[in-house]
Amino acid sequence: MKPRAALGLDFGTESVRALLVDLRGREMGSAVAPYRHGQIIETLPGSREKLPPHFALQHPQDWIDSAAKAVGRALKQARLGGDAVCGIGVDFTSCTMLPALRDGTPLCCAAKWAKEPLAWPKLWKHHGAQAQTDRINAVARERGEKFLSRYGGIIGLEWFFPKMLETLERAPKVFDATEVWLEAGDWFVWQLIGGSADSLPRSTCQAGYKGMWNAAGGWPSEAFLAAVHPRLANVVSDKMPGRLLAPGVQAGGLTREMAKRFGLREGTPVSTAIIDAHAGVPGAGAADAGTLVMVLGTSSCHMLNADVERFVPGVAGVVKDGILPGFYGYETGQAAVGDAFDWLRRLVGHRDFAKLAREAAALAPGADGVMCVDWLNGCRTPLMDGSLKASFSGLALHHSPAHLYRALLEASAFGLRWIVELLRDGGVPVRKFVATGGLPHHNPLVVQVYADVLGEPVLVHPSKQGPGLGAAILGALAGGAFSDAQQAIRAMAVPKAGAARVFEPGRSHRTDYDGIYREYRRLADFYSARPS
Amino acid sequence: MKPRAALGLDFGTESVRALLVDLRGREMGSAVAPYRHGQIIETLPGSREKLPPHFALQHPQDWIDSAAKAVGRALKQARLGGDAVCGIGVDFTSCTMLPALRDGTPLCCAAKWAKEPLAWPKLWKHHGAQAQTDRINAVARERGEKFLSRYGGIIGLEWFFPKMLETLERAPKVFDATEVWLEAGDWFVWQLIGGSADSLPRSTCQAGYKGMWNAAGGWPSEAFLAAVHPRLANVVSDKMPGRLLAPGVQAGGLTREMAKRFGLREGTPVSTAIIDAHAGVPGAGAADAGTLVMVLGTSSCHMLNADVERFVPGVAGVVKDGILPGFYGYETGQAAVGDAFDWLRRLVGHRDFAKLAREAAALAPGADGVMCVDWLNGCRTPLMDGSLKASFSGLALHHSPAHLYRALLEASAFGLRWIVELLRDGGVPVRKFVATGGLPHHNPLVVQVYADVLGEPVLVHPSKQGPGLGAAILGALAGGAFSDAQQAIRAMAVPKAGAARVFEPGRSHRTDYDGIYREYRRLADFYSARPS
Repeated sequence: MKPRAALGLDFGTESVRALLVDLRGREMGSAVAPYRHGQIIETLPGSREKLPPHFALQHPQDWIDSAAKAVGRALKQARLGGDAVCGIGVDFTSCTMLPALRDGTPLCCAAKWAKEPLAWPKLWKHHGAQAQTDRINAVARERGEKFLSRYGGIIGLEWFFPKMLETLERAPKVFDATEVWLEAGDWFVWQLIGGSADSLPRSTCQAGYKGMWNAAGGWPSEAFLAAVHPRLANVVSDKMPGRLLAPGVQAGGLTREMAKRFGLREGTPVSTAIIDAHAGVPGAGAADAGTLVMVLGTSSCHMLNADVERFVPGVAGVVKDGILPGFYGYETGQAAVGDAFDWLRRLVGHRDFAKLAREAAALAPGADGVMCVDWLNGCRTPLMDGSLKASFSGLALHHSPAHLYRALLEASAFGLRWIVELLRDGGVPVRKFVATGGLPHHNPLVVQVYADVLGEPVLVHPSKQGPGLGAAILGALAGGAFSDAQQAIRAMAVPKAGAARVFEPGRSHRTDYDGIYREYRRLADFYSARPS
Repeated sequence: MKPRAALGLDFGTESVRALLVDLRGREMGSAVAPYRHGQIIETLPGSREKLPPHFALQHPQDWIDSAAKAVGRALKQARLGGDAVCGIGVDFTSCTMLPALRDGTPLCCAAKWAKEPLAWPKLWKHHGAQAQTDRINAVARERGEKFLSRYGGIIGLEWFFPKMLETLERAPKVFDATEVWLEAGDWFVWQLIGGSADSLPRSTCQAGYKGMWNAAGGWPSEAFLAAVHPRLANVVSDKMPGRLLAPGVQAGGLTREMAKRFGLREGTPVSTAIIDAHAGVPGAGAADAGTLVMVLGTSSCHMLNADVERFVPGVAGVVKDGILPGFYGYETGQAAVGDAFDWLRRLVGHRDFAKLAREAAALAPGADGVMCVDWLNGCRTPLMDGSLKASFSGLALHHSPAHLYRALLEASAFGLRWIVELLRDGGVPVRKFVATGGLPHHNPLVVQVYADVLGEPVLVHPSKQGPGLGAAILGALAGGAFSDAQQAIRAMAVPKAGAARVFEPGRSHRTDYDGIYREYRRLADFYSARPS
């Protein structure tokens, strides 16, 4: 019998990973290809003009080129031919979004628009739309829009409509020229399967968590959009064509052209896209309700499936079938985690984390009085405010970089504890903790501090490619290898006994941390209050 | 005519400088000699026993040995014989104090007491007397002691009576064996001129700023001291003999023995001692009322002479004739300045300040939102609380070490502005600003930031040895070369036109800084409030 492999394509901020696994979840091949243009932050390709601050763009051609490279290498490593692949899953950063033409051409790839920054795809972390976010929130609150309750009462700076409104207000000609507004993950899947703009597959995950869409009410209403900006009124009907499909549902088959480009079989089933973090839920083996899957990377996304729908103030999104069919999917997150640790490492001029981690681990809980509020990229859950800033306090002349590093790790853990308390207080059960993503594997200290501060064990999923594995599971599902998502997850992603490392909480640490956590909350209150 | 030189001996924390100047203030020779034992922080000389934390002691023999060495070298450099010296002035760190016998022998130099840490001179920064400081403040507040108003309502951790009480409580036998308690500067002058304990010259400067003494009321009353500790009741009459003399007043003439040791003429007039920072006032050419002399070093001392006596809450001391005869001398200070800058430099792993200063200077006021409260060694004026801690806030991922450095410089300037507002609001005129000490010469950026934040010009005195020059002026005065202090200062220390660098405030910066300063004060309020 021919080997059968599922392919997961995991699009990150700097690179894309191709992961080939068999139908028991065992890795057969894996390769990473960085994007040629990486994050476009300083100047547009071919230009010397400085981009405004807070801009972060990407080049759509990079996504195709790097994915093709990574797939070729992964197949070679797995010693597989392209016809062994039974299905393709795609996870993507979000909300990374772009303006395009109806034939799929990204606007920035049309010569006329190549020099216009707002014609380029905006990366999730692009923070140019603060004023637009404020406007959208103000109008939504004023009108008492029901969708607000699904997002903890606030729309995020990084979401779909703020980014679109930014372009409408700052570059109206780009807005006029745009025929299709869409998520980058959906664009990529569309390129793989071809077809008209009207049939382009939009993920319910991206739409639900970043586009204020839900199954019952659809997109935000014309009346609401018109109140935000008259020219937005008809944007859904005019510029957002397509079909809404859940992750794991087959969007279509690989086109001949793309099959050739990727070295795969024409017609290979392709799943609808999923947000990268959300792919971590199946990837971490969380087939049931009540497991908080913490995807730890540059930022963190903490996701949970539950049997109940509760609107918890500050929780970024609850979407029915948003992560797995049959559950209410809750998304919460912390905006700077690995990014924050790396910022501190660079700030203190260290080449790596070895010395910092060794010295920080030797310090007692509380970092000798140094306290941190880690909002280096704003606060996602629960305050949903990208403009908030970080702080270190309690500093004295004898404190060293290790004290700041430990305080930062503890702040990250306190942020997590806040989220867990919020969910539980809101009636959403949280029973188990699974960490996945790259960070827990190369930074065990952060996982230990999390376990100590939570006072509960944290399991680190053995796969170092949680989202990639999740994407591959969705690929297998789209390819018909399993009858439902639970079956696929149990077969491919639940770790065998003893295969996962479990971090147990230190016996007395939870108590030690109780007082420090209260002080953290006091600081967080102060720093999130607007000066009067 | 023989050249006539005044000798200033400037005793710092790590070394002593001998400065020879002519009677127009021109430097003729200068030499620094480090103390053999430096700061005694880890173990006593000849012992392996660890000292308690917060201890900082010195060896009295170092003061004599290093001063003799420095004077010899300075004379050689100036090509002068010892008989050219017309007078000697001495400035000394304070409150550095010691227990001694009536013949002048420091207790620690008696074999019986050499192994007892509390028998050694305590350096100004020795912080072992926190509990005793609290006790003294509590009793003084309870009894409504009038001296409190002269010190902004609070007695400092580093002062004379807390250090004495620490020894009484922790090493009562040392207290019993002590025949004379005195300031190190006074001890040194006593050694130079000899004579009995009853005639030892005590400086009104040290006594007024660190010993709660003043001309009208004398030392703290027996009743107060008895309430602090019964065994302190008679300490002034029993163990604090001597005459109180103002700086610049001749204490006596050099003994034959000391003349030989120093290579100077027997009988050379010696001035009463002055606190090192306070010597910066004459040294900076501040002959009149209303000039704030900022002695900038590891910590900063900001001093001012005024024609009026006002009790300003938070100002560390107002002493009649405390700095110059005929004025009310005000002392204020910031606990970590150069020390704080150096802490940040080490934290971010830079070898020197060149890159930090260049990049920080290029940033606009406000350091792109990064705010600092610079209490890395507590807050001296106005809060007088050594337990307060520092903070950085407003941090985001794009901030670099230079942002933190600029924020720290600005925090230092805001602390200064707070002091100036406090004095002015309290009715004490502040008309001009002169910076002296080592820091303004090697860190011009800090002076520019001070000028910008104050919105007023700051003159950097050209002498790099402000306190040493001040001591030499007092030496010349004691030697009878001038009829009064104003005349001496105008002749020897007022810079010639064009000889001093003046930092003018940036035109719009004061306005830019107004809002940032308000935010600094809001942060300072928050961080100095006790959590409820």
